[in-house]
Amino acid sequence: MSTALLTDRYELTMLEAVLRTGLAERRAVFEVFTRRLPVGRRFGVVAGQGRLACLVPQVRYDDEALAALDFLGQQARTWLRGRPLGVEVTAYPEGETFVPGSPVLTVSGCFGEGLLLETLVLSVLNHDSAVASAAARMVLAAGGRPLLEMGGRRTHEQAAVAAARAAYVAGFALTSNLEAGRRHGVPTAGTSAHAFTLAHRSEVEAFGSQVATLGTGTTLLVDTYDTEQGIRNAVAVAGTGLGAVRLDSGDPQVEVPRARALLDALGATGTRIVVTGDLDEHSIAALAGSPVDTYGVGTSVVTGSGSPTAGFVYKLVAVAQEDGPDAPLVPVAKRSAGKTTVGGRKWAYRGDGRDVVRLRPGGPGRPLQQPLPSTDDVHAARARCADALAALPPEARRLDPGPPAWTVEIEDL
Amino acid sequence: MSTALLTDRYELTMLEAVLRTGLAERRAVFEVFTRRLPVGRRFGVVAGQGRLACLVPQVRYDDEALAALDFLGQQARTWLRGRPLGVEVTAYPEGETFVPGSPVLTVSGCFGEGLLLETLVLSVLNHDSAVASAAARMVLAAGGRPLLEMGGRRTHEQAAVAAARAAYVAGFALTSNLEAGRRHGVPTAGTSAHAFTLAHRSEVEAFGSQVATLGTGTTLLVDTYDTEQGIRNAVAVAGTGLGAVRLDSGDPQVEVPRARALLDALGATGTRIVVTGDLDEHSIAALAGSPVDTYGVGTSVVTGSGSPTAGFVYKLVAVAQEDGPDAPLVPVAKRSAGKTTVGGRKWAYRGDGRDVVRLRPGGPGRPLQQPLPSTDDVHAARARCADALAALPPEARRLDPGPPAWTVEIEDL
Repeated sequence: MSTALLTDRYELTMLEAVLRTGLAERRAVFEVFTRRLPVGRRFGVVAGQGRLACLVPQVRYDDEALAALDFLGQQARTWLRGRPLGVEVTAYPEGETFVPGSPVLTVSGCFGEGLLLETLVLSVLNHDSAVASAAARMVLAAGGRPLLEMGGRRTHEQAAVAAARAAYVAGFALTSNLEAGRRHGVPTAGTSAHAFTLAHRSEVEAFGSQVATLGTGTTLLVDTYDTEQGIRNAVAVAGTGLGAVRLDSGDPQVEVPRARALLDALGATGTRIVVTGDLDEHSIAALAGSPVDTYGVGTSVVTGSGSPTAGFVYKLVAVAQEDGPDAPLVPVAKRSAGKTTVGGRKWAYRGDGRDVVRLRPGGPGRPLQQPLPSTDDVHAARARCADALAALPPEARRLDPGPPAWTVEIEDL
Repeated sequence: MSTALLTDRYELTMLEAVLRTGLAERRAVFEVFTRRLPVGRRFGVVAGQGRLACLVPQVRYDDEALAALDFLGQQARTWLRGRPLGVEVTAYPEGETFVPGSPVLTVSGCFGEGLLLETLVLSVLNHDSAVASAAARMVLAAGGRPLLEMGGRRTHEQAAVAAARAAYVAGFALTSNLEAGRRHGVPTAGTSAHAFTLAHRSEVEAFGSQVATLGTGTTLLVDTYDTEQGIRNAVAVAGTGLGAVRLDSGDPQVEVPRARALLDALGATGTRIVVTGDLDEHSIAALAGSPVDTYGVGTSVVTGSGSPTAGFVYKLVAVAQEDGPDAPLVPVAKRSAGKTTVGGRKWAYRGDGRDVVRLRPGGPGRPLQQPLPSTDDVHAARARCADALAALPPEARRLDPGPPAWTVEIEDL
């Protein structure tokens, strides 16, 4: 399916104008970066590159797409028709950390094609990175306990799939979203809902039905009527080998220790406790001393925990003033109030506890940019994010509001 | 394309359990409502029904979907295979206003099928209504001036399309999103970007190129270098018949009157002013006395202006305790702390400045529920929303934080 129309109209009308003057074919470089993090955030996690690996090659102007572009003249239609994009895209690897000014993605090629990618690239990176950045804080707060993403019903049905994927990249263990399992290979899991218990004549009958079908390893939702009686019913039905109970209401600071004590008293010492219900990184952190086994997180992770977009912008940083594939690139930058950008293509490196960007490649540090992969490897991205989170400076791990934990320095080689 | 996997795993495992006991085939009713509005909001606008009209019939368990459900046993697979859902869905018409407790959508049919719709229904209504509810406040704040939705790059690439549609339903005039134009018939528009100006040797050259291609009726972005000079250049290039200028930086309270005065002094008295740059309902309202002609809104509208999800839940409210199509429905409600629901199917009516729900149909007032339409008519939804906004009580139009402007009363007939 073509992704060509997942863009803003002005990209096409600008293209039309620059095709007339020849500027469309000039060499140009666009960079994606953020001017600031969400208020109080100390770092971000960039995600979505694997999805872009699939979506960018689908930017094809086929007959159906062109039919919707009836405002374009013949020159633009001819230029677009069936055109495979020739731009080179480099990016931070998916799952890597970033701060303001990090050039997380670079598009290099002809100016006209650069225009065509702006909106799609930003949509994917802004959404997926917002989720991954929030999820990473939850992963840090959970201190090694597994997290289940279950927020699909709180966001657009396709954003839900991407959110499950981004949360997994950031270190969540599981998702409830079946399409994320099918499309991206994210492991899926689930418990049961209050409706299930309510539909039965009694809680005991509901638990019996669930255990008969799914086995004693299942997770029983115990708070539909009375949590204490629910736990007693759960162990009575499933036995002390019951997999887990889920608590979805009340104050988990009170309910979790109480549930643990009761399960232990009933002999269900191996039965795990899954906590759900409007959790975010702060409530997860507050439960660090509580005997929680798994956190189920919904709304807050899929909506970026208060910051549903990552703030990335896509800016022209260099353009040739002459035609031809070898014409020299000239740095450009706008001077709008409060929106100054640094001109010129930037190469980014990390090392010695700092990031630097240079206006030419080379020099000390680990290069942060690499070609956009041709396939979506979510498991590799997840492993990379785990490494990146492990390498964070201590102040970056703090959940209280603060400045970015490091800055990007512009270094003149 | 099947939408069957845009759901949570537990819906399928619960289905499997209730298929074993026969409960899957029992009559049941589920209702969608919200327990509260986002903090300070006085009403909401429900949207997404037209999308559900298309997505719900695509909940089909074909071979590809079933292949992904390898955790299900044979009975469930057989029951699901190719099954057309027989549930009856009623809903508030798209674009109607709501408050906490409004039963905006009702699913009536067999319990097993009701489970299958929960996640998809909530994803669509929660996303689209969050956008429409925020957009409606912007429409009220704009006081009749047109609004352009241009936030696609700040949200998931498919959510962007639905957001453009929801904003249009709520009264936005235009979107920049081309796929929203193609898929939903939302009128599209665009201006140009800073990159376009920067790529040219001068602003005058850029404006000349744009006007040569798009005509003098186009909108020129005048703040790339210096806004005053930009306006002078724009009128010098396009003449006094220039369509519009766009201001995207600085304080619009200062910049807009200054731009208007300069345009008028240059003789461009008919040239409109488009203002963009992190606008929300509050900054739009603050510009009521300023000579703005069009507001361009991005991030805030597509992210629900601080409330990216509408808070709808999908709850079982009645279920038969016996088999058969005529078995009586028995009201059910859970008693979890803070999450009490009212049992029984509810019929909603509006009239005399209040909403009532009744546990049987009939009585005074305009019925708010109707069958889910079979097609997506975004223009009808937009007209309906305009009527609903015109009928709002005065206190509902206030942008400052406050309680819901009306309540839903449960009336015993």
